Amino acid sequence: THRQNLARLQRKLDRLHPADIAYILETLPLDERLYVWDLVKADKDGDILLEVSDAVRPSLLETMDRDELKTAAEALDADELADLIPDLPTDVAQEVLTALDQREQAQVREAMSYAEGTVGALMDFDLVKVREDVTLEVVARYLRRFDALPDHTDKLFVVDRDERLRGILTLEALLINEPETPVSDVMQASELILFRAEDEARQAAHAFERYDLVSVPVVDKQRRLVARLTVSDVVDYIQEENEAEILSQAGLEEEEDIFAPILRSVKNRWAWLAINLVTAVIASRVINLFEDSIAQLVALAALMPIVAGIGGNAGNQTITMIVRAIAMGQVQPSAWRRLMVKELGVALINGLVWGGVIGVFAGVVYQNLPLGVVMVAAMALNLLLAATAGVLIPLLRQRLGRDPALGSSVMITALTDSGGFFIFLGLATLFLL
Amino acid sequence: THRQNLARLQRKLDRLHPADIAYILETLPLDERLYVWDLVKADKDGDILLEVSDAVRPSLLETMDRDELKTAAEALDADELADLIPDLPTDVAQEVLTALDQREQAQVREAMSYAEGTVGALMDFDLVKVREDVTLEVVARYLRRFDALPDHTDKLFVVDRDERLRGILTLEALLINEPETPVSDVMQASELILFRAEDEARQAAHAFERYDLVSVPVVDKQRRLVARLTVSDVVDYIQEENEAEILSQAGLEEEEDIFAPILRSVKNRWAWLAINLVTAVIASRVINLFEDSIAQLVALAALMPIVAGIGGNAGNQTITMIVRAIAMGQVQPSAWRRLMVKELGVALINGLVWGGVIGVFAGVVYQNLPLGVVMVAAMALNLLLAATAGVLIPLLRQRLGRDPALGSSVMITALTDSGGFFIFLGLATLFLL
Repeated sequence: THRQNLARLQRKLDRLHPADIAYILETLPLDERLYVWDLVKADKDGDILLEVSDAVRPSLLETMDRDELKTAAEALDADELADLIPDLPTDVAQEVLTALDQREQAQVREAMSYAEGTVGALMDFDLVKVREDVTLEVVARYLRRFDALPDHTDKLFVVDRDERLRGILTLEALLINEPETPVSDVMQASELILFRAEDEARQAAHAFERYDLVSVPVVDKQRRLVARLTVSDVVDYIQEENEAEILSQAGLEEEEDIFAPILRSVKNRWAWLAINLVTAVIASRVINLFEDSIAQLVALAALMPIVAGIGGNAGNQTITMIVRAIAMGQVQPSAWRRLMVKELGVALINGLVWGGVIGVFAGVVYQNLPLGVVMVAAMALNLLLAATAGVLIPLLRQRLGRDPALGSSVMITALTDSGGFFIFLGLATLFLL
Repeated sequence: THRQNLARLQRKLDRLHPADIAYILETLPLDERLYVWDLVKADKDGDILLEVSDAVRPSLLETMDRDELKTAAEALDADELADLIPDLPTDVAQEVLTALDQREQAQVREAMSYAEGTVGALMDFDLVKVREDVTLEVVARYLRRFDALPDHTDKLFVVDRDERLRGILTLEALLINEPETPVSDVMQASELILFRAEDEARQAAHAFERYDLVSVPVVDKQRRLVARLTVSDVVDYIQEENEAEILSQAGLEEEEDIFAPILRSVKNRWAWLAINLVTAVIASRVINLFEDSIAQLVALAALMPIVAGIGGNAGNQTITMIVRAIAMGQVQPSAWRRLMVKELGVALINGLVWGGVIGVFAGVVYQNLPLGVVMVAAMALNLLLAATAGVLIPLLRQRLGRDPALGSSVMITALTDSGGFFIFLGLATLFLL
């Protein structure tokens, strides 16, 4: 019966889409994962390796011997192979590469030559080309010789003898026009949306989103057709980017296999904790400057985290909004003054309203009216600091050519923590003691 | 020359895609935005209103009179109209609706009847149906009668007389097979990917991503074809969801027009600041319990934010990872024990390593070895608390049928703040004073 169960499981796995098997593997703890991986038919191995997350792939590759790796790799297209090769042992990668024909080798090398985050790293080489001087009838006959069209074929690419892109023939144009029409009459030749392999993937993703595209030609400097970019690669890219952004906001370096060994997880979370400890120690030293004040009025110790906390929250709101607007290309350099005025206005209102509430609370609880007034002033000032930094940090980083998002939350929190403690304890020392 | 410039601007705008105009409008401050909006050709108004962000749309609608609103609305498809109608004045919406023919009215009402986050709210009604008993030749002739195919037509829908879905005919199958082949021979009829209008959009998005889909039929309980879902709607949905997640992590209720009036921004950020103030006040009361201890040893006030801070950071790392894994469906209920063991292990290592570093720092700076030891213990304990809560909060919320993501960061930070202060000051009171 164990064997029966095994046979049943195997039959089920054989019927599943590689993406579904990848998903199942990701949800399983390591021992069960490898058990199932062992049952999967070898001809699906390559596709599954591509589909599993970067966090889980190594745990699968580690169990495969050279022959299995080669079989898996050989089942893939050039652009897919380019994604997998960096994870393979060098000698296996070399063998797989030399087994390819020259055109495919060139394609794999080309795809591998582009950095992550470029169109070149996402494009695929599988596409259908036609000539402009034939009729739609001829194109239709040509397509009937295919066993299958490349995935996401919504258009054919019209090229000349030198492979230069002359236009695109949508399947729609092919289908709604009369068969005797020449391609050149119904192809789109002007105002084409094109990418270059060096283009930023982010820009390409914006274009797909904005113009509802399915596939777009990728050309070189001489407008020769190199490859195409499809919506499925763009969707994967968008999801990976968003995943990365959410994880980095929480201080995780990369996606984590939830069943990863403890030490691998420690490593993934290490850097962020270290940075935050440094900023916490700085804030601690700021507090230490006012040791005498706190000894005289212990209430300060209880109230100071409130001032720091609201500054951190408000600062993160501002900086997140500005960073997103910059990423969407919505912030003209000339707009910074206007944004600053607005954010300072928001900060002032929040400072007076929330500061007022907390000021009354502090004044009543500690029976100390001046303490309440200092509380209002400190909260308003720290919110103004948060707003200023929330606008200036991303704009300055953008002007310096840095990614405005990276570490923005750490920076603003560090500033509003240390700044908040300094402002509140400083004002208290000046006016209360 | 002002008039020349104006004419040039207008010509430029006329040539732009509605999505590009929407983008330009979003980047402009209010006065310039309305100036440009005024120049845009009326026949593009509807599409532009759909493309601009929810944050910016009201500022455009406010300037339009009834006739302009009606013209804009009448240019839209049923599913698009359903998106816009909630933003229109009731009487204008009513007039637009009654001007439609009965089938379209029914479609608009149907699309509006589904909640946000369902397939029904995203689907569109524009699709091409064919019968299974005709040949591909007949289908091809039928398509030649169209002036245009619906966007993202990668397949035709094969239905019977009762509109029941019998299968799908991909354009690929139509193109690679011989014209005399009957549709029934080459349509895909089994293992179809189908959605129901009530299905969660999130699940549908996973399917698009996993199986690289372009369009999917939406059917009712009787398997009658209702509409279809296309990849462009799914991409928009994915982006909106991610946007919402990133904004809510930073405590912004919704996307904000960066040039919004100050009071509107205050409102958007109000709730989060209020919640955080409440948790900060609670933490402040916890500190207040140990007033006497702090008065005796002021170093405690300077060190306590470090303990609270590292707990908050580590807790956010854990909870973000677990929440994402739950959202991806990767966490089986049976896995929680394993996850807990792993997270506690990570916390213990981090607690001893980082706690050790900070403990030595505290012991040396304050020339107080026992204070250093208490620091190590407090940091390790607060990290263990953070790990426990980081696993349990999302799992419990999932079991209670709540969204595990909502407010998870606030909750864990509140817990590790108050908990961290209590653990550190409590241990200090017990062992140092």
